[in-house]
Amino acid sequence: MELDFQFTSDGLIPAIVQEATGEGQPKGRVLMFAWLNKESLQKSMETGFMHYWSRSRKKLWFKGESSGHTQRIVRWYVDCDKDVLLFEVEQGGGACHTGYRSCFYQELDREGKPLPIKEDPVFSEDEVYKKG
Amino acid sequence: MELDFQFTSDGLIPAIVQEATGEGQPKGRVLMFAWLNKESLQKSMETGFMHYWSRSRKKLWFKGESSGHTQRIVRWYVDCDKDVLLFEVEQGGGACHTGYRSCFYQELDREGKPLPIKEDPVFSEDEVYKKG
Repeated sequence: MELDFQFTSDGLIPAIVQEATGEGQPKGRVLMFAWLNKESLQKSMETGFMHYWSRSRKKLWFKGESSGHTQRIVRWYVDCDKDVLLFEVEQGGGACHTGYRSCFYQELDREGKPLPIKEDPVFSEDEVYKKG
Repeated sequence: MELDFQFTSDGLIPAIVQEATGEGQPKGRVLMFAWLNKESLQKSMETGFMHYWSRSRKKLWFKGESSGHTQRIVRWYVDCDKDVLLFEVEQGGGACHTGYRSCFYQELDREGKPLPIKEDPVFSEDEVYKKG
């Protein structure tokens, strides 16, 4: 597999994850932002589902492992500097651990203050992560 | 102004920049990815146009200063961890220094090899950056 990307000194590359919208240019909602290392990139390609590197837990992270909300990869892109990746995915449930469809549910005003949230969570954080 | 965000140890926060699509959830094309520090964030809010921190040139960077291809801010969002920003912008010309509308013009196959590019540049890099 080609891995001709610019990784950080920590061996990571940032990824923007967007809802897949079919043919043509990707124009879906941005769901989340996370980091991959070479291993998580290999795993993502092998399985067809997003795997990340968790910087806080310092381990490979299969998205949806706990929640069941996996991300099936549809298309992927690299940017002009080869140091950022963009993935189009089919998102199961919600991408955000808070229960929202996207991690970017909080709009801000020009002063940086939070505006009222215009959508409802798609799942309950308590039910998905704390059951059993 | 509120700046209650999680900046890196270098004082930076990453930003995803997306074409504005009007009311409702943002569903535009992802144009670029860059970093802001507090000064560039203040400048962006004061002027209504995107300013970044150039990590390579180590200076404040008004997007469009050389090319004229500015980014007028329409809406902005912070993610659930308050460590990534998402901006919806009206992009003049092209966002990418190569002349493409988006920096993410290069799709990859499952092996990470580049696929044929499906669009044309919207401006000539030579004409825009090297004239005069």
